[in-house]
Amino acid sequence: MASTYLTYSYDQLKTFCEDCFGSFGFTKEQSTIITDVLLLSDLYGIESHGMQRLARYHKGIEKGLIKVAAEPEIVFETPVSAVIEGHDGMGQLIAHKAMTTAIEKAKTSGIAIVTVRNSNHFGIAGYYAKMACDAGFIGMAMTNSEAIMVPTFGRLAMLGSNPIAIAMPAEPYDFFFDASTTVVTRGKLEIYNKLGKPLPEGWALNANGKGSTDAKDVLANIVAKKGGGIMPLGGETEQSGSHKGYGYGMFCEIFCSILSMGLTSNHTHIGGKGGTCHGFIVIDPKIFGDVGDIKEHLSTFLQELRESPKSEGATRIYTHGEKEIIAKADRLENGIAVNINTVAEMFDMCQYVGLDPVKYLGDVKFENAASSSYK
Amino acid sequence: MASTYLTYSYDQLKTFCEDCFGSFGFTKEQSTIITDVLLLSDLYGIESHGMQRLARYHKGIEKGLIKVAAEPEIVFETPVSAVIEGHDGMGQLIAHKAMTTAIEKAKTSGIAIVTVRNSNHFGIAGYYAKMACDAGFIGMAMTNSEAIMVPTFGRLAMLGSNPIAIAMPAEPYDFFFDASTTVVTRGKLEIYNKLGKPLPEGWALNANGKGSTDAKDVLANIVAKKGGGIMPLGGETEQSGSHKGYGYGMFCEIFCSILSMGLTSNHTHIGGKGGTCHGFIVIDPKIFGDVGDIKEHLSTFLQELRESPKSEGATRIYTHGEKEIIAKADRLENGIAVNINTVAEMFDMCQYVGLDPVKYLGDVKFENAASSSYK
Repeated sequence: MASTYLTYSYDQLKTFCEDCFGSFGFTKEQSTIITDVLLLSDLYGIESHGMQRLARYHKGIEKGLIKVAAEPEIVFETPVSAVIEGHDGMGQLIAHKAMTTAIEKAKTSGIAIVTVRNSNHFGIAGYYAKMACDAGFIGMAMTNSEAIMVPTFGRLAMLGSNPIAIAMPAEPYDFFFDASTTVVTRGKLEIYNKLGKPLPEGWALNANGKGSTDAKDVLANIVAKKGGGIMPLGGETEQSGSHKGYGYGMFCEIFCSILSMGLTSNHTHIGGKGGTCHGFIVIDPKIFGDVGDIKEHLSTFLQELRESPKSEGATRIYTHGEKEIIAKADRLENGIAVNINTVAEMFDMCQYVGLDPVKYLGDVKFENAASSSYK
Repeated sequence: MASTYLTYSYDQLKTFCEDCFGSFGFTKEQSTIITDVLLLSDLYGIESHGMQRLARYHKGIEKGLIKVAAEPEIVFETPVSAVIEGHDGMGQLIAHKAMTTAIEKAKTSGIAIVTVRNSNHFGIAGYYAKMACDAGFIGMAMTNSEAIMVPTFGRLAMLGSNPIAIAMPAEPYDFFFDASTTVVTRGKLEIYNKLGKPLPEGWALNANGKGSTDAKDVLANIVAKKGGGIMPLGGETEQSGSHKGYGYGMFCEIFCSILSMGLTSNHTHIGGKGGTCHGFIVIDPKIFGDVGDIKEHLSTFLQELRESPKSEGATRIYTHGEKEIIAKADRLENGIAVNINTVAEMFDMCQYVGLDPVKYLGDVKFENAASSSYK
């Protein structure tokens, strides 16, 4: 299978993406928010959560999983909290409203937690953590998902990839950590599958709960709920810390599905219902003292980490958020590389919704692309 | 080296421990709190943080690292937060006061975060998370420590073992997750060292930042700050998720040292100064709806996890806190096994502080024990 990439400018993909979501029935403002979430992912080099996801969102809308007209509704609140009912709307829009609500409450109360039920895939968790960080706060964002993490000693996926993101203002770049509590995300498996490459050991489990390197088989089993899935961070055994990744997955689940009274990951995505849950936490550092001092304190520690001695053969120690800043600068200047199979999906989707793909993406030849699921 | 264990009843160790801390200069009430933290660890089967630590606390007091007379002081506070200056006191006492403060604030505000600077080793983080959970809240507790975690691509320990604990009420047992953000804790390395066993692969790094199975060498390098240490959860490479464990370590550091303006792990335990920092979070579930419904929702999910299909060869899936409940019941009935080398240390410490060890621990023969550091 081909691993060719095509390069597009940020503006090109932005126009394309906004018009696509417009054609799905979203308003201009809504399309802008959704596009901003998707493209930050591509800018940050998180290919699995950008353009690669576009077709899946469209299919979700087609299948009725994602309801374009849904309005998120606050069903419970206090000065430091809210629970939002998503009514099966577009995840990015619900999450954007939830994080905006949390930021507003934190401005008054110093801390706020907002939980969300009955939403859908919201893109990268880090986008929402960054929203709070850009406003000067510590931001956290989490989401559950279709079950994909197999608990330690299990063989059936019971938790989602359950990412936890946290961002906090620092110089010269903010601290920005966004990671699934599984070893890797489903998106990574999809990329290996598209590239036709075997998975590294220590990532995935087959239907019997044993290690597997067959991306296609693992993905098929997950969809069919036949068993297997992705290992928790820490791998397969307690010796390597499997129970810890499983524990962080539970941490995420508590702030998403449990505190929203929503569906736990093992009950989402069944019978044409999504039911994804999210959690958002905002903390104003000023409730601990001088905001400038605290920011400088974090910045100093991050600098010390970057400057600390490297392991044999390594040339650089990264702090979280640094790679994303580097990737963003590069992609804004040199464009965003999109896998040709994803471009093929984008073409097919355009034709399906009545947009002219050539106008947005150029006249692409697909000899090497895998057949798209739209064909 | 011997791996013999001696078994003592809970009450026997409680009396011994309380009298020891009394002899160090703590009040009866203070000794009871410290003992309760240490013995919960032994009851829960976390041998590394119970009696095994006793001698080290005593040495910390002797060296002036831990100041017996210190009184923790609230130096900054809001209705949802506080910063506590520990004045280099006993970690367990400072942490107990901090979590008590957080619980009181959460009773009024729904959420509270208390950070602590200039404290010392506080035992198991889970003890304090459990305090909040026993009061009906979600409790979190974190601490930094002497640098032991080597950041991804580094060769010098820059972060502590940085455990994150979270507990939340559930039936038939509470959710209770307490784990270092390293693959394992230093205590585990110390036990392997005491037993003279090589470390499993994927745990520790030598002074050049490369994998090592030599517990003695790794521990000596950590003490001498020569380089090396323990890998983040997720191991040595990004492929296995090393940057994620490093990220959770940073999460912990933010809530401990950064938001208290205290020492980051890489600056603690230098020049006769401890400087450990902690963080405590309490959330009242009632700010998200009906407390009974939420507890039932979590209990149902935990039950589904335990009942989900097992991997080939496995017979049981645990939820977090279950092993601790089983261990506690067993140890209350059958006693607590203490490594003979630890007992030897306890004997020597008794003689040093003028207590009669035989009165508390019986007439033990130490032919097989390693020579104690008190001799």
